[in-house]
Amino acid sequence: MKIGILTSGGDCPGLNAVIRGAVLKGGRAYDSEFVGIRNGWRGLVQGEFMKLDRHSVRGLSRQGGTILGSSRTNPYEGENAGPENIQKTMDAEGIDAVIAIGGEGTLTAARRLTDAGLKIVGVPKTIDNDLAATDYSFGFNTAVEIATEAIDRLRTTADSHGRCMIVEVMGRHVGWIALHSGMAGGAHAILVPEQPQTIEQICEWVESVRDRGRAPVLVVSEGFLLAEMGEAHSHKGLDAFNRPRLGGISELIAPMVEERTGIESRATVLGHTQRGGAPSAYDRVLATRLGMAAVDAVFDEKWGSMVALKGTDIHTVSIADATMDLNRVTQARYDEAAVLFG
Amino acid sequence: MKIGILTSGGDCPGLNAVIRGAVLKGGRAYDSEFVGIRNGWRGLVQGEFMKLDRHSVRGLSRQGGTILGSSRTNPYEGENAGPENIQKTMDAEGIDAVIAIGGEGTLTAARRLTDAGLKIVGVPKTIDNDLAATDYSFGFNTAVEIATEAIDRLRTTADSHGRCMIVEVMGRHVGWIALHSGMAGGAHAILVPEQPQTIEQICEWVESVRDRGRAPVLVVSEGFLLAEMGEAHSHKGLDAFNRPRLGGISELIAPMVEERTGIESRATVLGHTQRGGAPSAYDRVLATRLGMAAVDAVFDEKWGSMVALKGTDIHTVSIADATMDLNRVTQARYDEAAVLFG
Amino acid sequence: MKIGILTSGGDCPGLNAVIRGAVLKGGRAYDSEFVGIRNGWRGLVQGEFMKLDRHSVRGLSRQGGTILGSSRTNPYEGENAGPENIQKTMDAEGIDAVIAIGGEGTLTAARRLTDAGLKIVGVPKTIDNDLAATDYSFGFNTAVEIATEAIDRLRTTADSHGRCMIVEVMGRHVGWIALHSGMAGGAHAILVPEQPQTIEQICEWVESVRDRGRAPVLVVSEGFLLAEMGEAHSHKGLDAFNRPRLGGISELIAPMVEERTGIESRATVLGHTQRGGAPSAYDRVLATRLGMAAVDAVFDEKWGSMVALKGTDIHTVSIADATMDLNRVTQARYDEAAVLFG
Amino acid sequence: MKIGILTSGGDCPGLNAVIRGAVLKGGRAYDSEFVGIRNGWRGLVQGEFMKLDRHSVRGLSRQGGTILGSSRTNPYEGENAGPENIQKTMDAEGIDAVIAIGGEGTLTAARRLTDAGLKIVGVPKTIDNDLAATDYSFGFNTAVEIATEAIDRLRTTADSHGRCMIVEVMGRHVGWIALHSGMAGGAHAILVPEQPQTIEQICEWVESVRDRGRAPVLVVSEGFLLAEMGEAHSHKGLDAFNRPRLGGISELIAPMVEERTGIESRATVLGHTQRGGAPSAYDRVLATRLGMAAVDAVFDEKWGSMVALKGTDIHTVSIADATMDLNRVTQARYDEAAVLFG
Repeated sequence: MKIGILTSGGDCPGLNAVIRGAVLKGGRAYDSEFVGIRNGWRGLVQGEFMKLDRHSVRGLSRQGGTILGSSRTNPYEGENAGPENIQKTMDAEGIDAVIAIGGEGTLTAARRLTDAGLKIVGVPKTIDNDLAATDYSFGFNTAVEIATEAIDRLRTTADSHGRCMIVEVMGRHVGWIALHSGMAGGAHAILVPEQPQTIEQICEWVESVRDRGRAPVLVVSEGFLLAEMGEAHSHKGLDAFNRPRLGGISELIAPMVEERTGIESRATVLGHTQRGGAPSAYDRVLATRLGMAAVDAVFDEKWGSMVALKGTDIHTVSIADATMDLNRVTQARYDEAAVLFG
Repeated sequence: MKIGILTSGGDCPGLNAVIRGAVLKGGRAYDSEFVGIRNGWRGLVQGEFMKLDRHSVRGLSRQGGTILGSSRTNPYEGENAGPENIQKTMDAEGIDAVIAIGGEGTLTAARRLTDAGLKIVGVPKTIDNDLAATDYSFGFNTAVEIATEAIDRLRTTADSHGRCMIVEVMGRHVGWIALHSGMAGGAHAILVPEQPQTIEQICEWVESVRDRGRAPVLVVSEGFLLAEMGEAHSHKGLDAFNRPRLGGISELIAPMVEERTGIESRATVLGHTQRGGAPSAYDRVLATRLGMAAVDAVFDEKWGSMVALKGTDIHTVSIADATMDLNRVTQARYDEAAVLFG
Repeated sequence: MKIGILTSGGDCPGLNAVIRGAVLKGGRAYDSEFVGIRNGWRGLVQGEFMKLDRHSVRGLSRQGGTILGSSRTNPYEGENAGPENIQKTMDAEGIDAVIAIGGEGTLTAARRLTDAGLKIVGVPKTIDNDLAATDYSFGFNTAVEIATEAIDRLRTTADSHGRCMIVEVMGRHVGWIALHSGMAGGAHAILVPEQPQTIEQICEWVESVRDRGRAPVLVVSEGFLLAEMGEAHSHKGLDAFNRPRLGGISELIAPMVEERTGIESRATVLGHTQRGGAPSAYDRVLATRLGMAAVDAVFDEKWGSMVALKGTDIHTVSIADATMDLNRVTQARYDEAAVLFG
Repeated sequence: MKIGILTSGGDCPGLNAVIRGAVLKGGRAYDSEFVGIRNGWRGLVQGEFMKLDRHSVRGLSRQGGTILGSSRTNPYEGENAGPENIQKTMDAEGIDAVIAIGGEGTLTAARRLTDAGLKIVGVPKTIDNDLAATDYSFGFNTAVEIATEAIDRLRTTADSHGRCMIVEVMGRHVGWIALHSGMAGGAHAILVPEQPQTIEQICEWVESVRDRGRAPVLVVSEGFLLAEMGEAHSHKGLDAFNRPRLGGISELIAPMVEERTGIESRATVLGHTQRGGAPSAYDRVLATRLGMAAVDAVFDEKWGSMVALKGTDIHTVSIADATMDLNRVTQARYDEAAVLFG
């Protein structure tokens, strides 16, 4: 059995650990061979491959990024795309099955291709933790640790200056990074896409903190929406001066908070630092286990399924089921955290 | 409602976060008061209390240790001990219920006291993650991250000198810290209490790594036993020269490996650095949630129960059930990791 | 002797360590008392003081921020300002001398006040390391470590996507943080205020890196100027679309690089995370020593002088001399680093 | 010009950064070639070489260990040893000059070989910072940061249990790591080889801390000597029970402190974690600059000299001068720190 592996979509700490886990497990438990598919689906469409043996994965559990490269190419678009062409490319390279590591788009494409007869299993990759079928996805823990360390640092500056700090973390559609880093960092409010809030409510929290003699620290997901503004304004969006906004939502909110409360307010957009670099030990273990389980899924011929964490175990679930729902911050989890607001 | 909180047993990152979570939740959701019980059960027996209000818990989510102090006092031993005396002390201080944060011994004592009519709920604390009723306990994640960072550092020295490094981590009865940090750090063998191994097997792994041109890195739990030696020798025990051994199991194994394989071998005992200091974001979130849930359990009058993580949710379980079994490394989890050995 | 201490200007890791070093040294070596002056010069002008004894400084060496608070108040402006009023306030509080911890503005104000007869010694505080009289100032080392860690993380994402990453670090007038973090992080170009460059030169470096098959990582000081643009455009300034620019210089350069080279380019502004939080061990030692030496300077009656690091020793220098020149990145140090560009 | 590079002696964070700095500077500024000499002097004596070009040093600034390997081989001992044989081996490989990175022994050997006509320049490597000719050596800063983080962690456990923690750091002959990490970590006593102390004095410090209601934290260099014991006992040495001692000096002192003061006392030997792994940004910059300057020294034909940090500049000094004196903790630096003891 010769298995191809590809990584697709944005960077995520643990990609290399998945690759290493798969290659070592496959080589030792199944005597299988591997081939690296370069730059996501593009490599599978255009036939870009690289050697991927035991030696290639040495030391990869702790190395950020992906040695295979990534892209956002759609396997259904462009020359040589589509299931039939891809099957030909696989046959030419002698690839029996593919492990596709990627987010919702990648997994959905993988499912469509397996529906057309290709032999693919998926490994979910989402830094935002927005896939409902897995308790946690690799990379999320690292992102939360990085964001929390930043919040810890920004807090001392807030305290020294009696200033309000608004920290913007990743999370386009779901607020898990904000929820966890905000709880860990002792934030005075956590603003998530699932729970639009008015600027009045936000300012109320800020003033309540100030009135207790403390410096407010707010954590906000990039995808948070102000309740009173249309999506055009707050999301992707117009800025406070009705110009096309370049910055993040925190850069919209900070001057509004400052103007209404009189408290000097600063926005910090953490950005890409949250999704690069060495994975935490948690993510290395999770990613390694997912990579190993993906090889098991290949030998179990579970085409169209993906591996997922449930409790402390790795299971397989159908991609079709797994991608039906976003893993949103539940009302219960939000209420739990909201006890600490203000 | 006035709730007393105590922390008992060894240090564990997240103790202060549990305390903070409970005090903030109790104050805001239930309008309850809190009182700190000093130095574990000793404070409850001897009536040592401290103020514990919102101000006392400021900034505690990220602070290691416990502001309440800890001890290993047994609530059934010594003057003023036992349920009747303790109930009197509680009454005198106006304490309606107690949240006891501690390991198996603490929880078992808590259960006995609740059997005698005291109002106590437990929060499990075990750095080793050895309680079966919770997926993970707070502190464990931090310990694994610290151990993994140490393994990463020791590896470069192993590689530079072509040397075998044997890293001893915590884990008296169960091997979870070794299993996770070993997987994360890319160890060539992981030696856990649940799986005694012969020195021959260990040397085989070491030589196999050396033969591939690499420097072997082994991770061993403090409670690991060599298969061919009695507990007297390997556990707590005699050293390689049949003298009462002062050091850890790694210091026993390293000279044996060096003698048999000819590979220079060094032991490093990580020790207490694994159980102190600031908790990881993961542990801050878990500990905060457990503290909050413990207050809910108090208001639900779930005396004799403890809070526990199952998947992504916090539940309550009976302490009697929770302490029946050790959370041992399963054969499946060991086999999963063992694919990477050698 | 009763000594007042104030911290002025922006946050800087090590402020608390200076305070602790001074209080412990003064108490033990000179049996002197201390009083905390709140919020920089404002506290001295308006008479806001706080207790500052041994107990107040417990654990402060590793704590970010300043327990005294800070402000940017000018001691010559507003009611009760100016040397005579300040002397009266000092007399009323029984303060014999003041240790003023701050940047160039603070130190210059301190010098003016000492010229008018007040007893003040300074401790230089500049995260940018822009004071020529000291080899390094506390906080700088921490900022460089934080920036370097961010560069390490961003690099893996650059590599995974074949993308150009432009990392903006602090440094308004001098490029030391960029120079050191850029060298440490293996940047392919370092853009500093002392060395304006054309966009053509920058793109040349970027393309040269790409042509070697690597992903370019650039580090840029916030105060860097493009050679071909007037200050209006590049500094504080207009954006690429001739609108008032809100973001940093990196956000100006990234789209220009992308447009000219065709390489996807992303800007990351590290911002305030660089100047808050726990100081590195290096900065704790330096800050502690500076605080101690400031007390010696008080007892040596070196009014109008500040403490400074030269080699491995702490000296005192006249503030008048110390603030004459900015500590700019020298041509030699720039050329040394530039060997690695492209 | 073809330059050989070797790394000799114990591991030290920054070795790879020196190699990278030299190779990139040599290639770009002088168009010189490089060859890697494997495993210290052994590779030069036995003719073990490896390719060392631009590609080989990619990403090395942040990678711990040495890609060249290391050993403690003496270039004057064994077959093919000595200057004449080595010159022949260099000639056969076409090596014009050698950059030798190592500690006092390595540098002394390099000097002897240059006296015999070989073309060698040195780069000082000492984690202990024990070479007087350089303000700091690379690796020292990283060791201090790691030791300080460990002290921070151990402190919370000391506080939680009211326990005395004795942390043993590296430093065989000089106490710099103890002095700096002890100051940074807020230790209550710092025990260094340069200043033997009686157990009475140590216990006095411990009791004084306890009497103030705090938990004592002591930092001790591995080479510290108790004043009342002969070197045989305390150094390498007999243990408290007059048996050959296996553990470190901290493991000797802890039970003595506990017995005399009644305070539960625990020793932690940090060990090899201090000398492996990724270098701090400080050490990356210093090591890169030293590597670059070593190439300059080669082209300046400064045989028998080594590069060294003085203030903020890199100089060359004669190895003969540089190795005459140990860089001991001075009385002034010790007294400065001792103000904080007890």
